[in-house]
Amino acid sequence: MPSAFPTIAPATPEIALADWTRTMQRSMLRQMLAVVSRPGILSFAGGLPAPDLFPAAEYGEALARVLATDRAALQYGPPFAPLKRHIVALMAERGVACAEEQVFLTTGAQQALDILARLLLNPGGEVMLESLVYTGIRQVVAPHRPAVLSLRTDLETGIEVDDLIDYLEKGARPAFLYVIPDAHNPLGVSISEEKRYLLAEVATRHNLPIIEDDPYGFLSYDGRCLPPIRAYNDTHVFYVGSFSKILAPALRLGWLIAPEVLIPRLTVIKEAGDLESSALTQRAVSSYLDAGHLPAHLERLQTAYRERRDVILAAMARSFPPGVVWTLPRAGMFVWVTLPEDIDAAELLTIAVERERVAFIPGQTFADSGTRAHNTMRLNFSHCCTADIEEGIGRLGRVLGEEIG
Amino acid sequence: MPSAFPTIAPATPEIALADWTRTMQRSMLRQMLAVVSRPGILSFAGGLPAPDLFPAAEYGEALARVLATDRAALQYGPPFAPLKRHIVALMAERGVACAEEQVFLTTGAQQALDILARLLLNPGGEVMLESLVYTGIRQVVAPHRPAVLSLRTDLETGIEVDDLIDYLEKGARPAFLYVIPDAHNPLGVSISEEKRYLLAEVATRHNLPIIEDDPYGFLSYDGRCLPPIRAYNDTHVFYVGSFSKILAPALRLGWLIAPEVLIPRLTVIKEAGDLESSALTQRAVSSYLDAGHLPAHLERLQTAYRERRDVILAAMARSFPPGVVWTLPRAGMFVWVTLPEDIDAAELLTIAVERERVAFIPGQTFADSGTRAHNTMRLNFSHCCTADIEEGIGRLGRVLGEEIG
Repeated sequence: MPSAFPTIAPATPEIALADWTRTMQRSMLRQMLAVVSRPGILSFAGGLPAPDLFPAAEYGEALARVLATDRAALQYGPPFAPLKRHIVALMAERGVACAEEQVFLTTGAQQALDILARLLLNPGGEVMLESLVYTGIRQVVAPHRPAVLSLRTDLETGIEVDDLIDYLEKGARPAFLYVIPDAHNPLGVSISEEKRYLLAEVATRHNLPIIEDDPYGFLSYDGRCLPPIRAYNDTHVFYVGSFSKILAPALRLGWLIAPEVLIPRLTVIKEAGDLESSALTQRAVSSYLDAGHLPAHLERLQTAYRERRDVILAAMARSFPPGVVWTLPRAGMFVWVTLPEDIDAAELLTIAVERERVAFIPGQTFADSGTRAHNTMRLNFSHCCTADIEEGIGRLGRVLGEEIG
Repeated sequence: MPSAFPTIAPATPEIALADWTRTMQRSMLRQMLAVVSRPGILSFAGGLPAPDLFPAAEYGEALARVLATDRAALQYGPPFAPLKRHIVALMAERGVACAEEQVFLTTGAQQALDILARLLLNPGGEVMLESLVYTGIRQVVAPHRPAVLSLRTDLETGIEVDDLIDYLEKGARPAFLYVIPDAHNPLGVSISEEKRYLLAEVATRHNLPIIEDDPYGFLSYDGRCLPPIRAYNDTHVFYVGSFSKILAPALRLGWLIAPEVLIPRLTVIKEAGDLESSALTQRAVSSYLDAGHLPAHLERLQTAYRERRDVILAAMARSFPPGVVWTLPRAGMFVWVTLPEDIDAAELLTIAVERERVAFIPGQTFADSGTRAHNTMRLNFSHCCTADIEEGIGRLGRVLGEEIG
């Protein structure tokens, strides 16, 4: 029989894919990052934490402790309750009162977003996103082929709540609104206290679920971040937290704070996605937190990132020509730069990479199809050391001087 | 302002959920496992590998090596190419020729299934599943609200390909067929060589994608498993592999072998789901494989599980009354038991737990709504030591003797 059945391999498979995949777009951000990550390029493009600040030794010790003592560490198992209790304590520091029963562990914050879209969004339903926003949320909603209601963002106070209310009063019934309370990606802005209260109130009044994505709320440089919207609304806000930026991305560990009544549904959706998050990682992170390492580590991160922010802002002030303006981030990892109207940041990037070996992400990458952000760019300040930041901004300043001048 | 905005918390949230969640079912399997995992119960219910056989020391060494030497280990990063090369070598041992460019890393096999459903299945589309099958695939397709075409399974030769051909010839155009080539969960059966060839041929002839889920193919006890269907068809078969059963579930690491042309689409879908699988885990598993530990570990697993299988089969032959029959698994972790028609396995479970402190999973748990499997049960033989297997089957035999007798 084998001779009658050689490998069956027509040259071109014609497998029918789901309809939505026809409009699927490769992540422009990922493609750009691949281009600008070549050796020798000083890059402000990524959204990476500083690798020299990862707590590799302490986390390695936690892993070794857990592997030596806990036979359940490599097995399937339920969510690890001690880790949930640590998260309740972390949330309290963020100004949020919640119970262990409201904590839902996820494989990074990205999975939390994906699960929530599955929970809330019907095929072809409506969602509300800022016109410039984290590309990962667009990827999450894309398979559901939603109508996206686009909201503007004020660069000093955050999301334009008036736009939101307009939509709602005109009858929009979005499955959810997505917001980043602090250190918005890509804009760097934190939502004002007044707008946080208003969003909390509008959510209940209009029965509008809010997905509040907070990867940067523990990375603040001018005093603590304000409490997130979840602090003022525990019925309509799904808070999304992550260990990626405060410990390490490779943990792939995040969490949701959700109404307890929805946890069983979230569990079913997560099981379909990846059964459960790694028992070993859950236990190792919990053991790291047991050992009390986090407060000193967060202080180290904040000190280092504050310095890097101050260095990038000072370097920009020195090196960038008149007509270029930027936000002053109080937290997080990004500065948002606006160039003169007639400058196209994508063209500028090509010149910057070729002529000065320096890179950034053009702001248009984060824009929806109806939004023009051609003359903007996002600069990351968490990844490079201060010397590289100074050098890189100097290079970028030379390019800007030549192109704008 | 805070005084005017106390915590907004009506007692009952009325968040609108996506329509499909109304028909969402809590995993009956998970609920049962929770019930029968109480201390003192000898359980054949789970699908767990043996924790005493996890390579905790060697994997711990691999983690320590990677954390000490590789600064990228805790960072975001692209799929780790050396791990893909190891997977190509593993697949060759399984009889499958594939290229590194066809290997796609996933957060466990479950994520591979979820990603493939997103790639292939339209809302309300058709899928083909065996009437008794791994519950995780039902959870994966549920959000897409498909029409499920149900196929029978022969307990000696596997999936009834005639049923499949009937559907296709009557015009069915399913998004995919899901199969388990070896040591079917829950039935324990491996697909015959003839049916493998036939499935490979039908897939191309009818342009039918096949998801081939192979978690147990490296756990064979009577000579090697046959090559999977992917060995005979590299255009229409999506092979799903996993480290969960051959190393440890808590790694949450699996892989797909897919047509290279589809890898970019798979990447976009995965990014939406969890960005990427842990760089640390990818590197640690790769380092473990570099060190050459796997062949001896697989031999240890096969020796231990073969003994457990032989012990459970012998104990059943000794202890079970006439009228009870079971499959003879050549691989994997499960025996499928059929009781006399008039015995309800769910009722039997209650009696077994209460009277003899022994547990199993009623076969109906794995059945679709049109399938009657009331008088069947799945027994796991990988998790317990041989002494517990002997003791537990003795207890179950007493219950069966009393109920059937």
